[in-house]
Amino acid sequence: MREHASVREVGLRDGLQLVKSVLDTDIKMQWCERQAACGFRDIEVTSFVPAKVIPQFADAAEVLNRAKNIPGLRAAVLVPNLKWGLRALDEGAEKITFVLSISEAHNQANVRRSTDQSIREFADLAAARNQRGLGNSVSLSVAMATTFGCSLQGKVDEARVYAVAQQLLASGADELNLADTVGYGNPAQVKRITAEVINMAVDVPVACHFHDTRGMGIANVVSALDSGIRRFDASLGGLGGCPFAKGASGNIATEDCVYLLENMGFDTGIDLLALLGVRERLNQWLADEPLEGKLLKAGPAKTF
Amino acid sequence: MREHASVREVGLRDGLQLVKSVLDTDIKMQWCERQAACGFRDIEVTSFVPAKVIPQFADAAEVLNRAKNIPGLRAAVLVPNLKWGLRALDEGAEKITFVLSISEAHNQANVRRSTDQSIREFADLAAARNQRGLGNSVSLSVAMATTFGCSLQGKVDEARVYAVAQQLLASGADELNLADTVGYGNPAQVKRITAEVINMAVDVPVACHFHDTRGMGIANVVSALDSGIRRFDASLGGLGGCPFAKGASGNIATEDCVYLLENMGFDTGIDLLALLGVRERLNQWLADEPLEGKLLKAGPAKTF
Repeated sequence: MREHASVREVGLRDGLQLVKSVLDTDIKMQWCERQAACGFRDIEVTSFVPAKVIPQFADAAEVLNRAKNIPGLRAAVLVPNLKWGLRALDEGAEKITFVLSISEAHNQANVRRSTDQSIREFADLAAARNQRGLGNSVSLSVAMATTFGCSLQGKVDEARVYAVAQQLLASGADELNLADTVGYGNPAQVKRITAEVINMAVDVPVACHFHDTRGMGIANVVSALDSGIRRFDASLGGLGGCPFAKGASGNIATEDCVYLLENMGFDTGIDLLALLGVRERLNQWLADEPLEGKLLKAGPAKTF
Repeated sequence: MREHASVREVGLRDGLQLVKSVLDTDIKMQWCERQAACGFRDIEVTSFVPAKVIPQFADAAEVLNRAKNIPGLRAAVLVPNLKWGLRALDEGAEKITFVLSISEAHNQANVRRSTDQSIREFADLAAARNQRGLGNSVSLSVAMATTFGCSLQGKVDEARVYAVAQQLLASGADELNLADTVGYGNPAQVKRITAEVINMAVDVPVACHFHDTRGMGIANVVSALDSGIRRFDASLGGLGGCPFAKGASGNIATEDCVYLLENMGFDTGIDLLALLGVRERLNQWLADEPLEGKLLKAGPAKTF
């Protein structure tokens, strides 16, 4: 029996977020369906944000509702605050990723409020979820952005990471997702911080969300595995990027991450060759976008 | 005091090996000089092979002799057998990398003899070096290609890796260089094999040479660091590739590797910003070659 490690697709959310041309809703649903058919149980399908801020997600409610009908899939949506979190509850989201940043500068830039205010809004969202009797059916994850550093303010205090984690756990977070939003993390730091947060979280699962902006994404996955992390976000074709560095790469590529995990002896439940088929489709769907990921070009090893 | 970890540039050898257009000797020397000025003490500057096999290296003797005049630089050359090893001694090489493959199929394809024959030739080269009284001035390293798997024969027996390592140590190897020639290694395997070889090698240093063909190169560096490896080969801009997979990436990118090591707290002795300057030059020198490496696009973190 191989140990399970899960990969959650975030290309439809984190990946598409910076793509200027709006992808047709039907294509988004095809993408979801095809990846679910490869064995993905968790896909972050969209972001509940004002359409005028990110036109790409104007179809968020429709995407969520259609994704809920895909057998075996738990469709997650990202929300930036309480208001949109409540909207996601209204729409019947089964998993909500509430995003906040450890870095004050980044939280202000991203969601226009203080980190403390975001923490309070998350607590309110958890309370609202419970009041509606959805405590067992709706899972609340918190994406702790800039946990490993911030391109705006620079260094992020590790003590602050732990203090925020503690508050989120106390408010009823069902998952903490340590996010290296800007690709500042390095394997030594990742090992230290993930070990500490796992220790604090006790039974609450901890996930990691790495960007490969500076080439350390997959190495950070290995360090996180060492600490005991078994949940990883990734984006097909490494779709995404960084608004502050033109041409820079974004999330770790899903196909490379799955390949790594399977090669290291973990069971991801994912059919890698089928996934490479979806990856080739992505080349067509987003013909103008530069995609990353090494595996598609080289193919899996003969020994795989 | 930070612990030292060294990065050896192999772009001029492993990188240029697959580049069809022959780079002008003066440009090769500029490349060497500029990287030496960044703090590189070890550069594999060329390959001693028949010019008709790899025209890129027709200027091997000249490159070696000019590189020997670069202050502070130890210029290494790669040789495929005894004959060319002796030629390298004749030319006054200070470090020779003797390449052989653990995989029989790969050794036959690459140097047209059995692995056992290559092992014997290495022993003869070491004996010749000693007979010439060069035991203390010429360092003999062995690149143990396909240590982590082979694209021709598939799986490579780990017991065979250890048996070959033992023979090379007995013959007087000054360094063993575990090479993932085809990008088959994964971090779990790298940790196991490097730990075992370090244990066997006792005082003889062990280096690693990783390709990023399937996106696991930098992660493999981290695993090797965990085992105690402190010497890594890398190629500027990830120059190189794989003759069996068009468009596939080659060696790990030097700039990404240095960035990783420095970020993890190691002292490489290399000026990273100066190195990025040389990396930009490489874009001009090899305008038609696809280069890899994430760092140049994104730039170092603000906290670096």
